[in-house]
Amino acid sequence: MRKTSLILLTTFLLSVSAFADEGMWMLSQLKQLDLNTKGLQIKPEDVYSPDQTSLTDAIVWLGGCSASFVSDQGLLLTNHHCAYSALQRNASKSGIDYIKNGFLAQNRSEELPALGTNAYVLEKIEDVSDKILLSVKNISDPVQREKIVQEKMAAMEDEIEGNREDVSARVASMFKGQQYWLFVYKKYQDVRIVFAPPASIGKYGGDIDNWMWPRHTGDFTYMRVYMAPDGSGAKYSPDNVPLHPKNHLRISQTPLREGDFNFIIGFPGSTTRWHSSYSVAWSLQHRFKERIREFSEILQLMDDFGEKDPQAKIKLAGFHAGLANAMKNYQGNVDGMERTDFVNQKRAFEAELMRFINQNPETKGKYGHILTDIAEQYKHLEATYQRDAAVGNLGWLAGNMSSLASQIYSVAREREKPEAEREPGFSERKVKQAAERLQYRFLSFYEPFDKELFLRALQKAKSLPNDQKISALQPILSKQNLKEFVDEAYAKTKLKDPAVAKELFFKSTKELNALDDPFIQLAAKLYDLNQQIKEEKKSFNAHINELRRAYIDALYAWKGEGLYPDANSTIRFTYGYIKGYQPKDAVWYRPFTTLTGVVEKNTGQEPFDMPAKLDTLETTKSFGLWEDPQLHDVPVAFLNTCDITGGNSGSAVMNAKGELIGLAFDGNYEAMTGDWQFDDSIQRTIAVDIRYVLFLTDKYAGADYLLKEMGLGK
Amino acid sequence: MRKTSLILLTTFLLSVSAFADEGMWMLSQLKQLDLNTKGLQIKPEDVYSPDQTSLTDAIVWLGGCSASFVSDQGLLLTNHHCAYSALQRNASKSGIDYIKNGFLAQNRSEELPALGTNAYVLEKIEDVSDKILLSVKNISDPVQREKIVQEKMAAMEDEIEGNREDVSARVASMFKGQQYWLFVYKKYQDVRIVFAPPASIGKYGGDIDNWMWPRHTGDFTYMRVYMAPDGSGAKYSPDNVPLHPKNHLRISQTPLREGDFNFIIGFPGSTTRWHSSYSVAWSLQHRFKERIREFSEILQLMDDFGEKDPQAKIKLAGFHAGLANAMKNYQGNVDGMERTDFVNQKRAFEAELMRFINQNPETKGKYGHILTDIAEQYKHLEATYQRDAAVGNLGWLAGNMSSLASQIYSVAREREKPEAEREPGFSERKVKQAAERLQYRFLSFYEPFDKELFLRALQKAKSLPNDQKISALQPILSKQNLKEFVDEAYAKTKLKDPAVAKELFFKSTKELNALDDPFIQLAAKLYDLNQQIKEEKKSFNAHINELRRAYIDALYAWKGEGLYPDANSTIRFTYGYIKGYQPKDAVWYRPFTTLTGVVEKNTGQEPFDMPAKLDTLETTKSFGLWEDPQLHDVPVAFLNTCDITGGNSGSAVMNAKGELIGLAFDGNYEAMTGDWQFDDSIQRTIAVDIRYVLFLTDKYAGADYLLKEMGLGK
Repeated sequence: MRKTSLILLTTFLLSVSAFADEGMWMLSQLKQLDLNTKGLQIKPEDVYSPDQTSLTDAIVWLGGCSASFVSDQGLLLTNHHCAYSALQRNASKSGIDYIKNGFLAQNRSEELPALGTNAYVLEKIEDVSDKILLSVKNISDPVQREKIVQEKMAAMEDEIEGNREDVSARVASMFKGQQYWLFVYKKYQDVRIVFAPPASIGKYGGDIDNWMWPRHTGDFTYMRVYMAPDGSGAKYSPDNVPLHPKNHLRISQTPLREGDFNFIIGFPGSTTRWHSSYSVAWSLQHRFKERIREFSEILQLMDDFGEKDPQAKIKLAGFHAGLANAMKNYQGNVDGMERTDFVNQKRAFEAELMRFINQNPETKGKYGHILTDIAEQYKHLEATYQRDAAVGNLGWLAGNMSSLASQIYSVAREREKPEAEREPGFSERKVKQAAERLQYRFLSFYEPFDKELFLRALQKAKSLPNDQKISALQPILSKQNLKEFVDEAYAKTKLKDPAVAKELFFKSTKELNALDDPFIQLAAKLYDLNQQIKEEKKSFNAHINELRRAYIDALYAWKGEGLYPDANSTIRFTYGYIKGYQPKDAVWYRPFTTLTGVVEKNTGQEPFDMPAKLDTLETTKSFGLWEDPQLHDVPVAFLNTCDITGGNSGSAVMNAKGELIGLAFDGNYEAMTGDWQFDDSIQRTIAVDIRYVLFLTDKYAGADYLLKEMGLGK
Repeated sequence: MRKTSLILLTTFLLSVSAFADEGMWMLSQLKQLDLNTKGLQIKPEDVYSPDQTSLTDAIVWLGGCSASFVSDQGLLLTNHHCAYSALQRNASKSGIDYIKNGFLAQNRSEELPALGTNAYVLEKIEDVSDKILLSVKNISDPVQREKIVQEKMAAMEDEIEGNREDVSARVASMFKGQQYWLFVYKKYQDVRIVFAPPASIGKYGGDIDNWMWPRHTGDFTYMRVYMAPDGSGAKYSPDNVPLHPKNHLRISQTPLREGDFNFIIGFPGSTTRWHSSYSVAWSLQHRFKERIREFSEILQLMDDFGEKDPQAKIKLAGFHAGLANAMKNYQGNVDGMERTDFVNQKRAFEAELMRFINQNPETKGKYGHILTDIAEQYKHLEATYQRDAAVGNLGWLAGNMSSLASQIYSVAREREKPEAEREPGFSERKVKQAAERLQYRFLSFYEPFDKELFLRALQKAKSLPNDQKISALQPILSKQNLKEFVDEAYAKTKLKDPAVAKELFFKSTKELNALDDPFIQLAAKLYDLNQQIKEEKKSFNAHINELRRAYIDALYAWKGEGLYPDANSTIRFTYGYIKGYQPKDAVWYRPFTTLTGVVEKNTGQEPFDMPAKLDTLETTKSFGLWEDPQLHDVPVAFLNTCDITGGNSGSAVMNAKGELIGLAFDGNYEAMTGDWQFDDSIQRTIAVDIRYVLFLTDKYAGADYLLKEMGLGK
């Protein structure tokens, strides 16, 4: 594919101005998209309007996932994998395996608290660019500028949130700081699980099918959002009542067809569409290739424990799923980048850009330095990369004890700083929230694995090259028997007790030091280096951000067209069409899968272990209202050309009339470099068809009351 | 897929009379196929006629493969994998790796003798049913009947062949002995290799892509058939001259399109379309599942040796390819049979058949016993199955020494029998031929592997259950250290010298026994048991054959339609259409692959290690005359619905006008149970497109003289 794809890709990169239908657009950009000529059959104001009720009012952020209201009783649809942690926590707590068995509340009183889940309902979007940028108008040092911006953003957020637990404010930078937008959410803290299918439906195909088409996963879960009787987004209480959302989505009654116009409103997490070739090369090596090695070792470790102990499997399921998912993503990026020789293509593109820049003394003066400056930044980063990675690992890939101690010790140190020197994001309220969340973290704590992970991280640190050794750690690392040290540390630490750990969030460094806890001691030893690395990263980020902003400016100057900002977990709109694709020579993927396909894949073995009842429904053709008249089958999943990424999981997919037709839950493997470039010919959104969701609700679960609630009379 | 496929399959089995377009038809059956309404644009007599020149005169049997003449100078096209052993033998002999490098003769004097290859040109087809059946008219014992038939067939063959080296006669049983047909071939023993692409083209995709679509293998080789100046099919001599065949195929100049009518004339090896459910169950267990275990162990052994020693890899390449191919076939059969629950479906079908049979006292009397009798036969077979398999292995899966000794000792014993008691096939001429072929066998002899294989077979024999132990072997098997025994045997034997081994084919048993050779001794020990097993198999075959014949009779009585006989390496005709298929839910396979697809698959690593030159040709779009106007690319392989099986490899695929459009080289994985049932919706022939062959001949190899010879002026 090498050569052919190069040609395709060059064409793509050089025509960056002609966007086809790509883009994760800010809602404020909707009007420039001319959506009615593209196929939208309602007014763009019906999709989003700051002044009147619109479909956007039915869209919910779950912090990491997206969702939408489907009834006036706070009923919400999202992906099964977005409810996965909540199910797992309930399972750990109750001993009932809600992941394996699924869960259906027969009535509201049976609903399970979706432990750790908050529903954020957007109340306000405001362009605050002027306010933020005014404060840094005359500041040329990028680090200084960034610091002030961060402080300003945090202050703005704090001012709005005040001490209200149910308000969340976030200022987000767009186009690397060209614009700043404020998003204010009402935060509902009492979310409950209503109906989750068993993993043999909701995770059917598991890691094997993850990112793959054809897909047969029933990746959905119903939740319900509650509020206090006074309307506030209070924590769980039996007195709480279902939320009456401002709007909710109507379910489509029209069969989907190839070519149909679709759109999605959701919260895509992060893209890097406008990053330079240096960024690509760095990510390919460090973010993808090295992480793949790292994650596969850790996954293997978890598999080994899981085989020996079912409890380990349940406790580690969430972490396992997260790493496996990320690893497949990284591998897809490596495959895609290597196949298309993406680094060199970006370089060729940048050579073209430089030709444009250098043609004119003015553009040359403004942008001529960008690429060499970017290169310089990455050189700095490289010099201490291995050390930084090893230190980083001790904070998040070295088991819960190590990362918890690091978090606790940092909080204490931060608290003891003069207020002006503290991190902009620091507040006692946030510390309290972190301490509260600890209980969920402990549901995933499995000591034997935790120990192995810690040992592994220490060994990594021990094997660093001489010029990058962590001197503060040498007393530990020089021990003959690291395993012995680890065993002793776990035997001695008090952090394993959630109640103790929670209290430590409010202790002083002096009190912490007095504990003589091995993990706290380790955290204390690493603190200075961690701070130093943090400062170095801040400096890098501030500089690179400035350069990236200039890079986008140059693109504007060159191509003279509007762009959409990279994704950053703020609300976005994307549209496209139902469409198959050609994954390789002589193969055509059609855009619909069916229940027959679910049965075809069934082996009886996880992850292809469809419930027997589904087999019966298929054999007896008990499709009910959910049979597609052309497929003569229940549609399961579909493809469209919408432009999404991680964070969009659970997003409502709507048709030209704005009716709900499915829930986005994945992208396809062939387009896994999609965060770096959008390729219309192979990039697809994978969505679970709402008819499969309803078929399962109806025929599999017999949850008629949910159908009725959604206005689907039976 | 279970349930759905069951329904499909039942429908298929119950409509056995409605053949759609399946069938490997005898040439004498052509007229009943109404081919002109099916799409054939020439007269059926142009395809085959006993009286005048027809396309069939251009079709050649290579003994195991098929081929066709493409010039009046004896130029022949077949598959690369059909020339594989000949290339390997030349490589072993010369030290030049013709498999890796490929081979192109710049002129006739450079052509390489295709060691071990004979070209059989059909001269006569005759229905000899009456002659054969007359001799057994009044014989009711199936074993006796079969013996007489075999003798009669052999006598008929011998009479025609006489002592002529270049005539080969074969009488074949059709419909399990309902009919007998005589085929007389002229046997050309001087066949030479003209142009074989490197394995990186001719075996591109290797075992991974074997049986798979989409396919990108350039599976072709040109050979040339020579004759003595007097016209006889003499062995290689520099004085020989190219054969002027009676007819040769013209190359199509019309682009292929989906839906086009195609047909194939070739030599399919073996099918079992009309076998009973007992036969299916037996094969599933013993022929497929157990062999898969066995072969995968042996393949692993070869891989290990191949990694350590490149010589081992070359020498074992042919054996390795053969086992790997067979194993994938077996696995496909297991997958297909289990997926469709084929055994139970056959049983359901037979229950229907029995209902029909039992409705009427006459049919009940004639056929009522068939199935219970078949069951009885398989019960006998099962009782000694493990012993029989272990003894069998010592004859063919225990290394060359063991099988050679077994062959040599059997020949001596056979020779010493009174003529009337000998095997019908035995003749001194055939012994001589076997002795001659020994030289090729030794090119694949690699002692360390041979020893391991022998040891393995002895260990298998040792582990037999008590009631099936081989008493004659106990003195050997009871040794403490079997490995020591094997080492000593290989150190001592004289069979490793090809010249010595050749001579032994003409020794008496007394002389052989006097040699004190460990392998000859082993063969002698096993001889009686081998003979006993042979007699038991003969009895089983005679009985089962008779029952299968009755089974087919019953089918005739039930369905009242003509059938085609199971394949048996005799010449057959099959037709179909260019057509893609749906391998699974939401996936459609198109019927053409392209050069772009070859490049897509290229990883630079075997078996996806396309030559750099091909990359250049693709990048520069140097397609010449071989670009398809719709694909805008060079077509590589295509699919049609023709009904073929092993033995058809290398067969000419022709269009409606009888012009050559490609060479069949594989079937698709999804239809690997095709030998047991034909399913129009998923069974496909995979052929290399003649335009890819010509593109490579022209642009890759620059062999203009071959194009000219085929009438393709440049």
